[in-house]
This record gives sequence, structure tokens and C-alpha cells, in this order.
Amino acid sequence: MNTVTVIAPGLLGGSILKTLRRAAPTTRLKVYARRAATRRAVSDTGLADTVSDSPAEAAADSDLVILCTPVHAMRGVVEELLPALAPSAIVTDVGSVKAPVHAALAPLLAGRAHWIGSHPMAGAEQSGLAAARDNLFAGTVTILTPAPDADRDAVARLRDFWATLGARALTLTPARHDELVAEISHLPHLLAALLVNTVSGDSLPLAGPGFRDATRIAAGPPELWLEILQTNRAATVSALEKFQAAVARARDILAADDRAALARLLTAASERRREL
Amino acid sequence: MNTVTVIAPGLLGGSILKTLRRAAPTTRLKVYARRAATRRAVSDTGLADTVSDSPAEAAADSDLVILCTPVHAMRGVVEELLPALAPSAIVTDVGSVKAPVHAALAPLLAGRAHWIGSHPMAGAEQSGLAAARDNLFAGTVTILTPAPDADRDAVARLRDFWATLGARALTLTPARHDELVAEISHLPHLLAALLVNTVSGDSLPLAGPGFRDATRIAAGPPELWLEILQTNRAATVSALEKFQAAVARARDILAADDRAALARLLTAASERRREL
Repeated sequence: MNTVTVIAPGLLGGSILKTLRRAAPTTRLKVYARRAATRRAVSDTGLADTVSDSPAEAAADSDLVILCTPVHAMRGVVEELLPALAPSAIVTDVGSVKAPVHAALAPLLAGRAHWIGSHPMAGAEQSGLAAARDNLFAGTVTILTPAPDADRDAVARLRDFWATLGARALTLTPARHDELVAEISHLPHLLAALLVNTVSGDSLPLAGPGFRDATRIAAGPPELWLEILQTNRAATVSALEKFQAAVARARDILAADDRAALARLLTAASERRREL
Repeated sequence: MNTVTVIAPGLLGGSILKTLRRAAPTTRLKVYARRAATRRAVSDTGLADTVSDSPAEAAADSDLVILCTPVHAMRGVVEELLPALAPSAIVTDVGSVKAPVHAALAPLLAGRAHWIGSHPMAGAEQSGLAAARDNLFAGTVTILTPAPDADRDAVARLRDFWATLGARALTLTPARHDELVAEISHLPHLLAALLVNTVSGDSLPLAGPGFRDATRIAAGPPELWLEILQTNRAATVSALEKFQAAVARARDILAADDRAALARLLTAASERRREL
């Protein structure tokens, strides 16, 4: 990729820029940001070669355009940059939910550029450009959700791009992505939030490293997680109901003092977690 | 404390020894370990000044005896070391549950030494002496559970001891300790184990740092957690039932697509977790 465009850099987009500066220093970096303060921050830190207030200007002559806006804003920004896209360009995103993004963007981009969704399984409790890091993707997984008829060469190039950032790419359909990520990301976030809300105020001063680790994700930006949970509502409700059944079983095991069943539960979890 | 005895050093007892070597190098350290391999490991690493296969020998002339065995083994080991205890000695433990330990040991030790329970809110997924660290207690909390008639000077000395290790001491009754710790430690462990067991095998390869953090505690030693959950069963069942109700409410909020209620839930959790 000679030229990469980041649309709306926050934690993820900013971390892409920082990592490319380190790992691919000859890549030309272009940025679109709606807010003047963000454009100034990008300019001041030299994170990009050009910074623009026009999505089309930022996307022109780009080999890869990465959408980092909230999911609901992606369609609008793609409509703005569409006329400037090279037909050989790849357009991707970093949204946490894939079927709705695919449904919104695939028809718009058909025949205009190579559209392939991405979801980097990386993040932090902090959000915004100031929290960006040049190693956020190291050792992580990025899920690609190409359509069945996606250009194989474009998928390979996008996979290589994520590898440059340190992430291993896996491929799933958008629908399967949303199901699996409901279990491994959206459900855990909701449970961490419920745990934080449920424990009594008297117990909080006793929190040790275990509680802190277990609930760290709950500190994440509420507006981002509200959008994620609403957008992936059906799959998250299913995952939550499966978990509800497991909690009910565990409650019965504990209430009945069923030592063997409790030992099986704890041993299975310890082994499965250690294998991760 | 001139002389400190650690009974059965594993992760916690070993970390106490390592930290004292660094932070209080003139303190004489004595160890009892049942297994020859543990005694050899302590000798080989110079973690203690004397290592014995007799609890009484290890406890003789000691200012502070720290019980690091599983909770069910504490009574037996105290019966063995009782004849060797100086009347001015403090006996404490590091067990995760306090009312049953207090019930077992307070009558045995009455008039024989100063019995004050301790629960350091520190730990790791690894167990055993090999995982011990000289900074395990830095910035953590240790809960002391003295009886109402406990010697004030002894409580103050035990508080200072934990401060030397880097831990801030709080005081609670044994029963209140068990209630609060069920919420802040035992419930989170059980939930992390259930989450690990419940997610589908297909979703595990997608696990990001959020899922890893949220479930790290589930990797802990199953036999230790089995004892903790069984010993603190009533309080943990109560905490679990409170959490069950919160999960049911969250499921209804999500299923009904109640945006305002979901936003309140996420915002409250994010703010409360950030304050921690």
C-alpha cells in the first residue's frame, strides 16, 4: 500500500497511523477529520502527511481507505468520498459489528472499489486520538468479512496490511462474525458492566487485581458500547440467554453444595482459560 | 517483628518471604513445609533462615506466625505448633474466607497467643512457591478480622507488618468480610469461569485483550477455588442471586431495545469503574 487514508482517527485510527509510521515509514498517510481540534492534533504530531476536512480529498489517490467513524456515520462519509475513489482502492472499516455495515456499504461500493469489512479485536478503556499507541495491534486478531465474490487479491492485500500492524487476519461471513463476537466481546462487556453496577459500595474498597482485571472493559466509552450492543442486539440477547442458563445451573450447584459438579465447572474453566 | 514464621509457603507465603527479604532484611525468617521438595526449594533460594518439617519448631521464638495452608488444614497445624507459641506471638493466616477460620482457631488460641485473621486481596493465576514475587502486595488491601476483644497493640503491629509488605490494612468482622468478599472476589471468579465455559469454541480464537482480562482469574487453581466457594457458600449464593436478577433485567432491556435504560446501565458502570 503506497497511500493509506484514515477517516476519523480516534483510538483505533490513530493507532493505525502511529504503527504505520513505525512499521511502514515510506507509506503516505492521509487523514480526514471532521473536528478542527483533531486535524490540528494530527498535524502537530506529524501522524499523517496530509490532513483534510473533506473525505473526498482524503480518499483521492488512496490504495486503502479505513473508516473509523461510529457505525451509523459510515454510510454518509462513504457517499461523500465515493466520487474520489480509485476503482483499485480497498475500502475497509474498524467497526465492531459487521452485518449492518456490510448491508449499508456493499451496495454503495459495488463496482466502485473493493469493499472488505475489518474488525480488529484490539482496544482499550481509553478512547480518542490521545490514547493511540504504536503497538495496539501487536499479537491481536483482525476479522475480515469479505463478500463471497470479493477480489482475492484485494483480500490478500488487506490481510498483509493487518500483518504489517502485527495482527493476524481471520476470515468470517458478516453474520457469523456478529454471532461469535457477541459471545467473545459484547456479552463480556455487558457482564462486566453488570458486575460493576451490582456489587455493593462497601465491597468496592476491597477490590483486588482480580476484580480490576475482570471489570476493566466496563470502563470503556458508554456511547460506543451503546451503539455496538444496539447494532448487534439479536446475537447479544442470544448470548446473554445462554449465559443466564449457565448462571442458573451454577446457582443450583452451589446451593445444593454439589462438590463434584462445582469441581468440574472450575476445572473445565481453568483448563480452557489456560489453553487460550 | 524480629522473627516471622511462614507455615506452608506457596504463592502468598513465598511472596511474603521474598518481600520481607527486600523490605525488612534484618527480620529472621522461619519456614515450615510438609513437602521435602518445598523445604529444598526454600533452602536453595535462601528465602528463609531456617526450614523445618515441624510446625512447632518453625513457630518457636516467633513474633508472628502466618498460616498459608488451605483453610481446612489450619486447625491441625495450629494444634501441632500450639505448645511452642510465645504468649506474645501473633498468629494470622491468609485464607480467603474468615468466619469459618475464626470459628476454628479462636477457641484454640484463646489465652495462648494473639489470633487475628488476615486476608490479603492479592493473588495470581499461578500458584505455588515458584510463582512468588517480591511485589505481590504492593498497592493492595489486606483485610484484618480481629475479634472485638483483640489486643489493640497486636492489631497495630499486624497492620504495620502488612504496611511493610506494601498493603493497606482494613478491619472488618469475619462475617462482614465473608459477605463483602463474596461480592468482590468469589462471585467474579465464578462468573469468569462460567463465561469461559459458556462461549463457543469457535469464538475463542477471536478473543481480544478484553476477554483475556475479563477471564484471567478463571485460570486460577480449581482446588483452591473449590474450597473458597464451598466454605463461603451462603454468601456466594446470595451474591449470585443478586447478579442473576441484574442479568435478567439487562436481558429485558436489550430485548426491548430500551436505549435510555441501556445507556444508563453502561454510563453508570463506566463511571463507577473509572472511579475505582
